[in-house]
Amino acid sequence: MKVDDSKNKQNLQELIDTRDFVEHISVDCVIFGFHHDILKVLLLKYHDLDLWYLPGGFVFNDEDLREAACRVLYERTHLSDIFLEQFHTFGRKNRTENNVHQILLKNKKIDVPPDHWIFQRFITVGYCSLIDFSLVDTFPNAFNETCAWFEVNKLPKMAFDHERIINCGLEHIRKNIDTQIVASNLLPEKFTMKELQTVYETVLDEKFRRNNFQRKILALNSLERLEKFFDGSANKAPYLYKFADKK
Amino acid sequence: MKVDDSKNKQNLQELIDTRDFVEHISVDCVIFGFHHDILKVLLLKYHDLDLWYLPGGFVFNDEDLREAACRVLYERTHLSDIFLEQFHTFGRKNRTENNVHQILLKNKKIDVPPDHWIFQRFITVGYCSLIDFSLVDTFPNAFNETCAWFEVNKLPKMAFDHERIINCGLEHIRKNIDTQIVASNLLPEKFTMKELQTVYETVLDEKFRRNNFQRKILALNSLERLEKFFDGSANKAPYLYKFADKK
Repeated sequence: MKVDDSKNKQNLQELIDTRDFVEHISVDCVIFGFHHDILKVLLLKYHDLDLWYLPGGFVFNDEDLREAACRVLYERTHLSDIFLEQFHTFGRKNRTENNVHQILLKNKKIDVPPDHWIFQRFITVGYCSLIDFSLVDTFPNAFNETCAWFEVNKLPKMAFDHERIINCGLEHIRKNIDTQIVASNLLPEKFTMKELQTVYETVLDEKFRRNNFQRKILALNSLERLEKFFDGSANKAPYLYKFADKK
Repeated sequence: MKVDDSKNKQNLQELIDTRDFVEHISVDCVIFGFHHDILKVLLLKYHDLDLWYLPGGFVFNDEDLREAACRVLYERTHLSDIFLEQFHTFGRKNRTENNVHQILLKNKKIDVPPDHWIFQRFITVGYCSLIDFSLVDTFPNAFNETCAWFEVNKLPKMAFDHERIINCGLEHIRKNIDTQIVASNLLPEKFTMKELQTVYETVLDEKFRRNNFQRKILALNSLERLEKFFDGSANKAPYLYKFADKK
């Protein structure tokens, strides 16, 4: 999806003119999208630059940090009411020391004084989520011309420390995979053990033996076994499950 | 430990005059101290106010976020080279909306303009650590007159959202207890299963049956069994263990 250039310049000018952001703070959302057996991450591309970055934004003075993360996510995906988790804050002193913003603004012929808040040091708070990417539309913002999903192990050239943020988010999702999968609504309400195993294998990028997986998962006591699933084929009908505490 | 009043006023004036902090950002350290079967947290008390708070501070422009947390911890405890982990960032819009700083400064007769950075909104990044509190001295800073250890379930009246930060830090330590205990150097290099169980029980505030605990811990594969420990008593000699991957 593209935004036309004059609209884009106007968006950018409005952002630059905004005076009610909390300086030095940003939020970045690492949105992992799962579908079939592929795990992707949502990225944006800068105008005129071969450089991708995470959907992120600034925090308004009258807005909680978490509200800002939800707003940013909503602006890019029109998703709300999903499980969005803060995972880490990135504060290396030189993490935003580069001229990406200067180049973007210069290309658009927008004059910004060198002491403008947008050129200052930013500390960014990372939020992550795991969603079904086939159900999501994406929407670009003032800075970017393209939104796209990338496989997590085939990332394009990333701005700032965003590759590190993605890897840290991925680590968080993997470490908390049991909670994440229950909360993510990736599966239908009733699912087979095989469907669940595919989600785990895709997120963890690891294959499991069927019996081992089943034993490990049942030991978590988070599943409720339901009726068998008959699809009319000659195969043995598998049981259906649901999450015992699924919200 | 107390600091005399004129020295304190001077420290406070120096802090207020500092111009090279990153505005709107602070760090707070939740330092849990374990000794025998008690879990405590390190708190500071404000001058002239019946209000306690976490050891924290601001981030210098030329300093990584993590470096700031380590520096703050060093300033308060003279500890370095310990396992200090970032666990959450607190950014509710009204979390620092109160007049604690104003009252402190007024009491010390230090004039500060109302638009000074210290009165602005702060987002704070929480770090936590688990240490042996019997091995640590504490050192007050410009704002506080007393450092003290409090049992985690007997907290005094806390400033800002610091009680929430402590509870969130405690949750983090409990959720990651296996890693935390290996990293925390709470135990001697060689220890008995009973000593290890006491640490777990104290941190988790939960009692375990000896056999269940032993089975659960050995399943983690993080322990190496060593020789038996003979103390000359008539009791059956227990095995000693060490952490297999202890750093």
